[in-house]
Amino acid sequence: MIVIGDELLIGQVTDTNSGWIARQFAPYGWEPHYVKVIADDAYEITRAIDEAFAVADVVLTTGGLGPTKDDITKTTMCEYFGGTLVYDEKTAANVLEVVRRRGIQLNEYTRLQAMVPSSCRVIQNKVGTAPIMWFERDGKVMVAMPGVPHETCTMMSSEVMPQLLKRFEGDFHIDHRTLVVYGITESALAMKLDDFEKNLPLFLHLAYLPNEGVIRLRLDGKHTDATLLKEAMDAALASLHSQLGDLIIADGDLPLAAILGSRLRQLGLTMASAESCTGGNIAHEITRIAGSSDYFTGSVICYNTKVKINQLKVTQEAVDNYTVVSQPVVEQMCQGVCDLLGCDCSVATSGIAGPGGGTPDTPVGTVWMAAKVGPRIVSQVKRFPGDRDRVINRATTAALHLLLSILPR
Amino acid sequence: MIVIGDELLIGQVTDTNSGWIARQFAPYGWEPHYVKVIADDAYEITRAIDEAFAVADVVLTTGGLGPTKDDITKTTMCEYFGGTLVYDEKTAANVLEVVRRRGIQLNEYTRLQAMVPSSCRVIQNKVGTAPIMWFERDGKVMVAMPGVPHETCTMMSSEVMPQLLKRFEGDFHIDHRTLVVYGITESALAMKLDDFEKNLPLFLHLAYLPNEGVIRLRLDGKHTDATLLKEAMDAALASLHSQLGDLIIADGDLPLAAILGSRLRQLGLTMASAESCTGGNIAHEITRIAGSSDYFTGSVICYNTKVKINQLKVTQEAVDNYTVVSQPVVEQMCQGVCDLLGCDCSVATSGIAGPGGGTPDTPVGTVWMAAKVGPRIVSQVKRFPGDRDRVINRATTAALHLLLSILPR
Repeated sequence: MIVIGDELLIGQVTDTNSGWIARQFAPYGWEPHYVKVIADDAYEITRAIDEAFAVADVVLTTGGLGPTKDDITKTTMCEYFGGTLVYDEKTAANVLEVVRRRGIQLNEYTRLQAMVPSSCRVIQNKVGTAPIMWFERDGKVMVAMPGVPHETCTMMSSEVMPQLLKRFEGDFHIDHRTLVVYGITESALAMKLDDFEKNLPLFLHLAYLPNEGVIRLRLDGKHTDATLLKEAMDAALASLHSQLGDLIIADGDLPLAAILGSRLRQLGLTMASAESCTGGNIAHEITRIAGSSDYFTGSVICYNTKVKINQLKVTQEAVDNYTVVSQPVVEQMCQGVCDLLGCDCSVATSGIAGPGGGTPDTPVGTVWMAAKVGPRIVSQVKRFPGDRDRVINRATTAALHLLLSILPR
Repeated sequence: MIVIGDELLIGQVTDTNSGWIARQFAPYGWEPHYVKVIADDAYEITRAIDEAFAVADVVLTTGGLGPTKDDITKTTMCEYFGGTLVYDEKTAANVLEVVRRRGIQLNEYTRLQAMVPSSCRVIQNKVGTAPIMWFERDGKVMVAMPGVPHETCTMMSSEVMPQLLKRFEGDFHIDHRTLVVYGITESALAMKLDDFEKNLPLFLHLAYLPNEGVIRLRLDGKHTDATLLKEAMDAALASLHSQLGDLIIADGDLPLAAILGSRLRQLGLTMASAESCTGGNIAHEITRIAGSSDYFTGSVICYNTKVKINQLKVTQEAVDNYTVVSQPVVEQMCQGVCDLLGCDCSVATSGIAGPGGGTPDTPVGTVWMAAKVGPRIVSQVKRFPGDRDRVINRATTAALHLLLSILPR
């Protein structure tokens, strides 16, 4: 995969397309050889295509196809594969249709999108103005796609992937399974699984993916015999479950908020959050999951102390005696938000996300959090390292996990 | 830059280190030639180092240095640069200290971290157990760093970058300036700036970076003469300001929430959000900005209709007559949250983020939003394309902008 764009290379925008594409192809046994992020530069583009064709049968490029002057990809590819840029009627009609649906005006730059290399087959972009270009050389294929994630993903799913799969059919089977583990360090987990890994068949492989306090264990398998592969994967998964027990919080690659959500739905419980330092991120993570309205009632984000006191019935006494970053305050927040919004469970956070606001007693990164299920309230304090975003993200993970840990199994 | 890790290549984790590193070096005129993401594979690592040394003076690698079996980077680099893996006392002491501070147990895998190639100079990792390795070859430098973002960023800032800058001093000057533009399409903007671009000196370059409805215009310049560069950049910026006027919502590469926040602080106003479909994301974006407690009072996330009615005083009549996704409801939410939390301004959202829940009258992606400043309330409806995350993000951007647009200038 070749990712084209100065903005990606200098770090102004993060590439998420290549990972998304890789995840779509994984079930079919197609793995990216590498991903190379390069500048909007004709020489670099040419060199990257040469390098990629040397090792891969399929080369996918994203980006560099917008109508503005900093995008030189189309011209470079035209030179690489031969031919000239020609005005394509069908592409022009598609651009017109896309522009019409968006209710915006057609202008000279949009019209330029209808110019395509004569050496490519065009796949019409149903959700954007940059056409997708399919090139062939020596039995290998290169597909050039726009870089806007929404356009890349939509067109990849609906057209590019089906056409590529039809063209190159795999002759082996592949399987990925993921378990989510919480409450153990990566190295302690590796110690625990030392024998397990030594006894794995050669066509299976275990990878450790730690992120924000949660470790994903991914078991990858690849074999020409689908039945054999399935049996070996099932046996390895069963062995992991018997060795890790409750450390496994999910079977499958789910976000923590989805794991929590499915447990709440099973139990028929509703929840709320009362957030100070996490500032709405807990609610955001929960509501990113489709269907969360089944169990998520709402939140009170109480950045200001008066909101804690007036809406969540935190006592002035608790604030005065213990400060707002304290066990009594987060426990009162948990109780208060359940009473206010009328729900069964809640989580609450109060802490110092930084970079300012720390004190010797309560340094930056200190977060008190509480969780409530029915009459039971538990609380804990953590001190997270790192910058503001990291403290917010780690506190969100820890609070979600605290609630998950006290739900009935 | 070489990014090592199966989990990145198959898209289970997104690489954010390379972009972060690029942003740190930009002010010094160091630009990445390319970023290559590769598998945890000895052959691929060796090949990637060869390729990188062929075009760059400095090669940075991230990832592949954890203590678990899927990390083979250290052995591969030891073979590449010669020598053997040796037990390093200083590294062992550092690992012990890091582990002690984390309050976790030392085990065999952690001890393995103290084994380093004899051909490298070790930079002690103050925030993790994987040592940073500095290799030299033919006047060129390769630095291998761990991939955990917090560790990479901390050690890059404090040690690796200062040491690299000291070693290779640049002989030209570079400048990047960014303007944030809202309310115009990329192609209409490019039309408007056609003459501007034609008249730019050759050492300046303009790039368009559209994302979630906002376009960042980045002007890059590079010249041996610092004074000349500054004058040309200043003149180009002034010209952009005179041509784009109010379309420019910020001078500098700021998130929309930071632009809004600094305006609120200037005006001495406080704000709240009342969020249904954005589910806390507006509050989250606002509170990601350090110091937001100066102007952000809090939010009510009203996923459930009864929260809209009970807490935000949305009338049952408005819900019955117009549904919860309607102009009267979001306007009442705006008023209600200001009354409840006692603040000057507010934003409110109610919509269908999808994938389910759409109706013929209110399809998925429909979002009503309102903003209030003092007695004035404005509202608008948008229909956003894309998946749930995209609808939430676009609605967040649009709501923040709606409030920004009605604040006094």
